[in-house]
Amino acid sequence: MPIHPIELADKLVRSGDKYRYRLDLQYDGTEFSGMQWQPRKRTVQKCLEDALEILFCSKVRVITSSRTDAGVHAERQVVHFDSAKWRKPSSIVRACNVTLPPDIRIVHAEEVDAGFHARFSAKWRAYRYQIAQVPVAIGRQFVWQYFKQVDTPRLCSLAGVIIGNHNFTAFAHESPTEKHNYECTVYRSEWRQVGDLLQYEIDASRYVHGMVRMLVGTMIDIASGRENMLDFDKIMKSMDNRFAGTKAPPSGLTLSRIAYREWPDF
Amino acid sequence: MPIHPIELADKLVRSGDKYRYRLDLQYDGTEFSGMQWQPRKRTVQKCLEDALEILFCSKVRVITSSRTDAGVHAERQVVHFDSAKWRKPSSIVRACNVTLPPDIRIVHAEEVDAGFHARFSAKWRAYRYQIAQVPVAIGRQFVWQYFKQVDTPRLCSLAGVIIGNHNFTAFAHESPTEKHNYECTVYRSEWRQVGDLLQYEIDASRYVHGMVRMLVGTMIDIASGRENMLDFDKIMKSMDNRFAGTKAPPSGLTLSRIAYREWPDF
Repeated sequence: MPIHPIELADKLVRSGDKYRYRLDLQYDGTEFSGMQWQPRKRTVQKCLEDALEILFCSKVRVITSSRTDAGVHAERQVVHFDSAKWRKPSSIVRACNVTLPPDIRIVHAEEVDAGFHARFSAKWRAYRYQIAQVPVAIGRQFVWQYFKQVDTPRLCSLAGVIIGNHNFTAFAHESPTEKHNYECTVYRSEWRQVGDLLQYEIDASRYVHGMVRMLVGTMIDIASGRENMLDFDKIMKSMDNRFAGTKAPPSGLTLSRIAYREWPDF
Repeated sequence: MPIHPIELADKLVRSGDKYRYRLDLQYDGTEFSGMQWQPRKRTVQKCLEDALEILFCSKVRVITSSRTDAGVHAERQVVHFDSAKWRKPSSIVRACNVTLPPDIRIVHAEEVDAGFHARFSAKWRAYRYQIAQVPVAIGRQFVWQYFKQVDTPRLCSLAGVIIGNHNFTAFAHESPTEKHNYECTVYRSEWRQVGDLLQYEIDASRYVHGMVRMLVGTMIDIASGRENMLDFDKIMKSMDNRFAGTKAPPSGLTLSRIAYREWPDF
């Protein structure tokens, strides 16, 4: 793992009084190498920390609720950060939105108590995946343009299979360097037709890396009749991602919200 | 006016049998210098004619229903063109969408009789203008981000003033080289709040150049309390565009449909 440049400096800031802020962000992930800081990459975290540094006149490290991959969008991502300086939350919104690039907007800021943690305090997260079944130019950045015939009732029944607590190893990227917990509790998993769009909505306690895109791709493979596929629940029970189907493209995926109360509340 | 390279060649094609096609297009106008062909500019017409030339193996000239300015979008624009060669409409959609850039999609094609003319057969056109009153990153290309307080009931009553047949000189670009008819019949002119968006919808027989953006900008100026403005109906009656307000940015404007039947039918 590359080391973030503020990792060490951060420890020094922790002496003395500090203020903790929660920011709610929206971003269009098309031009980002994901949310998380990476050396020499244009990431959401990098752009946001640069904007906060200008406002607070010192390095700021933000903690993200959920990492999103390159090309994945967020309608409402949550981060927190600490600062020794106080700023009025509404000024943070206005001032940062001036220096941030237009594909990131801070939509809300508030001061929170030291017990709040963007990631650990979150109870569940909602993602949306959108598939356009007709050609689209307007909003093409936010859909998967997929024109094969899809058996929608089949899709809806597949979605129901994953509700509850399951091991999602079969729908996870392999990450040999990290030990993972692959257990997630899925509260909602639903497909619906909205005009010419097929929308998938999932609410879960947590997600393993690549999970929503692999779930969507696999359900679509099965519902559009791709042969030689195992049944969906067999794939899940296999705990082997070689049985999963296509990985749906990142453009269709949006982190829609982070909730700090028990499901279905926010 | 620059001369389109096919203007002359076109006359030769007109001898002998030809087939006429109607195409319905969607485009994201952000990266285009408008719809209409211009020398050395990236326009929708240029890209479309290039794609059709590949398919038909000969130069094709498309006739557009409505010109749109640089940065203005179209959800459903209509064009027609003639060709000496016959192609199956569904093949035109599929084949052209392969060679077209992703910000233009053909969403429908059909063979029409020689009496159909994309512009002259159209009975009315609908435009939508969108204003976001909170910061947006997702879909920022399709809105005007405007954060001043707007008196919405005032806006709604202003919109009603233009319904009917009026002279729109006060909301037209000056075009010294062309003689214009400034009379337009407005069938619908409505603002509504959709979530955090203010949406304006207008259906009219025709539009003068710059009309929707100047109408929107002027209504917004008045409804957000800009001083020293004439009353809206006085501005209209003045037939002098120096009394109009701000011209709203092109990003918020979308040509939503072209209708070939009497209003309110399509």
